[in-house]
Amino acid sequence: MRIALLITGGTFDKEYNELNGELFFKKTHVKDMLGIGRSLVPARINTLMMKDSLLMTDADRALIAKACLKAKENRIVITHGTDTMEHTARYLAARVAEKTVVLTGAMVPYKFGSSDGLFNLGSALAYAQVLPAGVYVAMNGRFFEWDNVRKNRKAGFFEERRRGKAADKR
Amino acid sequence: MRIALLITGGTFDKEYNELNGELFFKKTHVKDMLGIGRSLVPARINTLMMKDSLLMTDADRALIAKACLKAKENRIVITHGTDTMEHTARYLAARVAEKTVVLTGAMVPYKFGSSDGLFNLGSALAYAQVLPAGVYVAMNGRFFEWDNVRKNRKAGFFEERRRGKAADKR
Amino acid sequence: MRIALLITGGTFDKEYNELNGELFFKKTHVKDMLGIGRSLVPARINTLMMKDSLLMTDADRALIAKACLKAKENRIVITHGTDTMEHTARYLAARVAEKTVVLTGAMVPYKFGSSDGLFNLGSALAYAQVLPAGVYVAMNGRFFEWDNVRKNRKAGFFEERRRGKAADKR
Amino acid sequence: MRIALLITGGTFDKEYNELNGELFFKKTHVKDMLGIGRSLVPARINTLMMKDSLLMTDADRALIAKACLKAKENRIVITHGTDTMEHTARYLAARVAEKTVVLTGAMVPYKFGSSDGLFNLGSALAYAQVLPAGVYVAMNGRFFEWDNVRKNRKAGFFEERRRGKAADKR
Repeated sequence: MRIALLITGGTFDKEYNELNGELFFKKTHVKDMLGIGRSLVPARINTLMMKDSLLMTDADRALIAKACLKAKENRIVITHGTDTMEHTARYLAARVAEKTVVLTGAMVPYKFGSSDGLFNLGSALAYAQVLPAGVYVAMNGRFFEWDNVRKNRKAGFFEERRRGKAADKR
Repeated sequence: MRIALLITGGTFDKEYNELNGELFFKKTHVKDMLGIGRSLVPARINTLMMKDSLLMTDADRALIAKACLKAKENRIVITHGTDTMEHTARYLAARVAEKTVVLTGAMVPYKFGSSDGLFNLGSALAYAQVLPAGVYVAMNGRFFEWDNVRKNRKAGFFEERRRGKAADKR
Repeated sequence: MRIALLITGGTFDKEYNELNGELFFKKTHVKDMLGIGRSLVPARINTLMMKDSLLMTDADRALIAKACLKAKENRIVITHGTDTMEHTARYLAARVAEKTVVLTGAMVPYKFGSSDGLFNLGSALAYAQVLPAGVYVAMNGRFFEWDNVRKNRKAGFFEERRRGKAADKR
Repeated sequence: MRIALLITGGTFDKEYNELNGELFFKKTHVKDMLGIGRSLVPARINTLMMKDSLLMTDADRALIAKACLKAKENRIVITHGTDTMEHTARYLAARVAEKTVVLTGAMVPYKFGSSDGLFNLGSALAYAQVLPAGVYVAMNGRFFEWDNVRKNRKAGFFEERRRGKAADKR
């Protein structure tokens, strides 16, 4: 069971430019991270874009949806900026059916100290292997269904949109 | 849905003693690791022992089984040395029913560079939340049923014991 | 022989704000860094300010000069942003005599991966202990006299201002 | 002024073998460390051996002395295990004259978290550039003359052998 790993950028992959002190994208670290995790999950990595998710347009989301639909794999992990992860999840839920799609990201760039990236990648790959078809967000060790998740910007974590409906009810 | 996190030691938690150059156990890093992962999975951490799994006896395994049975939680993650992880999985499978038990560990101590610990902890917590009752090993990003896993000592990873029966068939 | 360690901020001490993705100052890491280096150099740490050196004014530089003059120690290390390190060095050279003053900094924040901070701090402390009175910049493993140093902004390192006069001639 | 960097092994360069849980030598990290430090000190790296200094024999020390004597450089840094650093310093002091020789090492391997290696390398390179001819140990941010240093094994740091004669008097 091979997994498609679609890269779109986000904090996950940001780096520090020591010449001007700004954050920027060079190339994805996901392959290195799979190496650190000694991952043996069969995976195909496809870099779609390297974007801050605040700058993502619907054209970008259309590209992501198309990549999900075209993928031969039925299980897909998408690395994505956290700021609009819930929007992309909603966009994909309306267009991609019969596939397990898990979006994940990081609050701190992988290359910096104390990043949550490796933890999130491990959990996203696990969720992608076992959850039924649907679109999910995997953050903070938990998973959320696409229609019941939001980023709590003040606190810096993800939570259910509606009280009383726990995403992990079962 | 709270998870019980039972700590038994293993490479995961080993540290370097700079006075004599040997590896040793001080205390578990699992709580720090959950912090780095920004984990919001409700979890109760219980340190049962801090042992190299090569030194684990059946008395130790009986203690682990008892902790699984006594836990109010139905979903349990156990951190464990990799060398006898498959033995403990088999031991628990014969004694613990109707709970989802996921064993995980690391090839490199968390405190050293390039540890797989954070990746494995993320995936083990995810598997523990979604897999049906049973005893599993979560390593290398994958999960294995207790009766179909072994550590390939030469290569340093986990694999199915029997060919033709993939643990992640579905 | 105690050393005065004057903190002024700079890339050295920048951190990543995971709520808004911006870099900011919290508190200095110099004490932690001395711990990592197992430093036993007697040192008094005094945080004067936490500033990006591009925002440093002559009022700030006056404050630094005053702290150098008032210090009981004759050997002083100043952590400082790299962008205007040479300006502060020149400012201090005109005001502080009969003390060994060594400015140092980092191209990458200490808290991020692959920072040069620890290396630079080790070399600055060494230079401060052995160089004769004067004002110096310690970067890239080398030391430069205050009147013969500039940051090569394009390349991201420090070099002599004048050819033919090597700062480390001897 | 080029520096000769002679590598002999020691904790500095130890790595973790994830297959058997033991520490071992692969190849030196000194070149990587100079890169992290953005070092621009002209340096020639020469790996003489990769040894735990407890296993170092006088034949090994003869080899190190010979490399010091043969080097065209007058300033030499030697990376060395901490356990017998003072013995090698004494051995070299009797055989190498008119050169500045600085021995350094680490209490924790560079590849592990929280290593003092980068800090020590920065300070050793600085001391090698400015100290007069002689044999020195650079550890804990300080430098010690060859005849006035010992490792305090219980505490894990270096100190003067004789009270009343501070190595850094001046």
